[in-house]
Amino acid sequence: MRDLDAGPVTVIGLGLMGQALAGAFLRDGRPTTVWNRTEGKAGELVAQGARLAGSADEAVAASPLVVVCVSDQHAVHGLVEPLGDVLEGRVLVNLSSGTSQAARDTAEQVAKRGGAYLAGAIMAVPATIGTAQATIVYSGPKAAFDRHEPALRSLAGRTAYLGADHGLAALHEVAVLSLMWNVLNGFLHGAALLGAAGVDASAFVPLAKEGVSTVSDWLDGYARQIDEGAYPVLDSTIDTHLAAMEHVVEESEALGVDAELPRFVKALAERAVAGGRGGDGYAAMIESFRTPASA
Amino acid sequence: MRDLDAGPVTVIGLGLMGQALAGAFLRDGRPTTVWNRTEGKAGELVAQGARLAGSADEAVAASPLVVVCVSDQHAVHGLVEPLGDVLEGRVLVNLSSGTSQAARDTAEQVAKRGGAYLAGAIMAVPATIGTAQATIVYSGPKAAFDRHEPALRSLAGRTAYLGADHGLAALHEVAVLSLMWNVLNGFLHGAALLGAAGVDASAFVPLAKEGVSTVSDWLDGYARQIDEGAYPVLDSTIDTHLAAMEHVVEESEALGVDAELPRFVKALAERAVAGGRGGDGYAAMIESFRTPASA
Ligand SMILES: NC(=O)c1ccc[n+]([C@@H]2O[C@H](COP(=O)([O-])OP(=O)(O)OC[C@H]3O[C@@H](n4cnc5c(N)ncnc54)[C@H](OP(=O)(O)O)[C@@H]3O)[C@@H](O)[C@H]2O)c1
Ligand SMILES: NC(=O)c1ccc[n+]([C@@H]2O[C@H](COP(=O)([O-])OP(=O)(O)OC[C@H]3O[C@@H](n4cnc5c(N)ncnc54)[C@H](OP(=O)(O)O)[C@@H]3O)[C@@H](O)[C@H]2O)c1
Repeated sequence: MRDLDAGPVTVIGLGLMGQALAGAFLRDGRPTTVWNRTEGKAGELVAQGARLAGSADEAVAASPLVVVCVSDQHAVHGLVEPLGDVLEGRVLVNLSSGTSQAARDTAEQVAKRGGAYLAGAIMAVPATIGTAQATIVYSGPKAAFDRHEPALRSLAGRTAYLGADHGLAALHEVAVLSLMWNVLNGFLHGAALLGAAGVDASAFVPLAKEGVSTVSDWLDGYARQIDEGAYPVLDSTIDTHLAAMEHVVEESEALGVDAELPRFVKALAERAVAGGRGGDGYAAMIESFRTPASA
Repeated sequence: MRDLDAGPVTVIGLGLMGQALAGAFLRDGRPTTVWNRTEGKAGELVAQGARLAGSADEAVAASPLVVVCVSDQHAVHGLVEPLGDVLEGRVLVNLSSGTSQAARDTAEQVAKRGGAYLAGAIMAVPATIGTAQATIVYSGPKAAFDRHEPALRSLAGRTAYLGADHGLAALHEVAVLSLMWNVLNGFLHGAALLGAAGVDASAFVPLAKEGVSTVSDWLDGYARQIDEGAYPVLDSTIDTHLAAMEHVVEESEALGVDAELPRFVKALAERAVAGGRGGDGYAAMIESFRTPASA
């Protein structure tokens, strides 16, 4: 989406992701200033029209909107600390990964220097940045988001504001990542099981995708139950799931495949049953996740 | 799909699923005989045209294709044991859940009585039985499957034959179920995290679905790597994942949410890193699943 009044932007950190971000701004015709700690990463961007700043200070001074994308929260801290008044009146958007507490700390660090802070989380790979497929979520002051939303939309077709708490973007990022690893681990465990019986992982993919998409369709209903705090059975009770979980453990052991994951899944369900949730639907398991096992 | 030469079928076990199966046969115009251990479950089916047999023996004798759907493998064993020659020349299709070993045992039990055995696994809820959305997979003798495929297609739009090993259907079932629980657990953990920060589970659903569908799109590529035994980085190294996994553990601990699941996910990745896989893509984690942690 080309913004008619395309204001200048700055991108600090030209790793894989930073380069993709700056490239998307440039493609949208925004005057883009870039800077990276070590030299030699701006070549392609400069060829596309970016201006290379001589220092982080100079890069910040170039635009009202400064996007930072470096390795982690420590790198962000180290970048912001030496910046002085130059942040005054600007919006710093941090798209580096980190914890929600780190985001709140950075917000204070930026506020002390007179700037506003938006914490963002990129749920996309560099290749999709700037396309309709990319999702980036933001949290922090709504006014800052609204002011720069047109520019931020250059980066991701799906651009969403989550709320004023700076920690929300990081929290959503870890929640989604955690879910993604669980999907992958479930697939890998299934592939290991079938592999031990001579079935190719590729042959498992169609059924695996079907299973994933079936569960994905259940999430709305489960979420409603969680928000309402009542878990009537939609498909199958936790008791019934538990019986089938025992099969997965047995199969894994019989085939000499790692049985830790199915045992863990089963132990979680057993905890729910011990808590009196055996006759409820699976969404009641949320109670187990809300409360540490040791509590 | 109405089979022009609709041969008679028998359904034994009229629980939630058995009733759905018999109903689908009836809707396709097949002469359908039904039987259930305890009385009083056949009423609706009889009203739809089913014939209620007076005993399991009589039910089996009524059709060349006998579908069994009872609680579990023990119930199947108990059903087949007293059947004598009546199984001779018939195909028994078992759609009850169980382990792959139980399927192989039942195959022997049926063979001793002169019957052929197809082991099936239903990847669908009763409500979708008989529709294009339902998937049922089968394993066992190909000839038996081919002969009765038209009838079996009455039960599920997606009807697939997996191979001659009777255990394959059960194995695919546990692999898919295991994947589904992992997706649900990942979602529930994320919902618990966000819930602790005041975010509704329903608000998490869109991002969660996006994350799930993103990962689902990766499965083909991961499966190819697994089948080829080489794991070049497609998106991110296991080392990089591990750093982000630490964030999930930290967030969970900070918010007082169960940190067991993210700790478990992290421990799996640490095992891969310890095994020299840190620089590989996530699919290399298959090695951890293939080998028990204690091995
Ligand atoms: N790549 C992805 O698919 C993806 C997806 C979602 C989110 N993210 C997040 O985006 C961020 C950047 O990822 P990336 O893929 O671009 O990583 P990358 O390719 O490794 O680049 C890291 C960047 O951070 C800079 N940096 C590191 N430490 C620094 C410090 N102390 N001071 C200043 N600059 C420092 C590096 O500068 P030098 O060149 O000087 O080393 C480099 O520009 C990460 O937080 C990552 O989690 C990435
Ligand atoms: N429901 C689903 O969504 C679903 C999905 C996929 C797979 N499955 C599988 O389908 C199978 C049946 O599930 P369901 O939902 O129909 O269960 P259900 O409603 O609990 O019905 C169980 C059936 O098994 C019969 N039964 C139990 N023990 C028996 C025995 N020893 N001898 C003879 N009959 C016996 C019961 O007969 P009585 O009436 O005499 O007790 C009843 O007809 C299970 O293996 C399940 O895992 C179900």
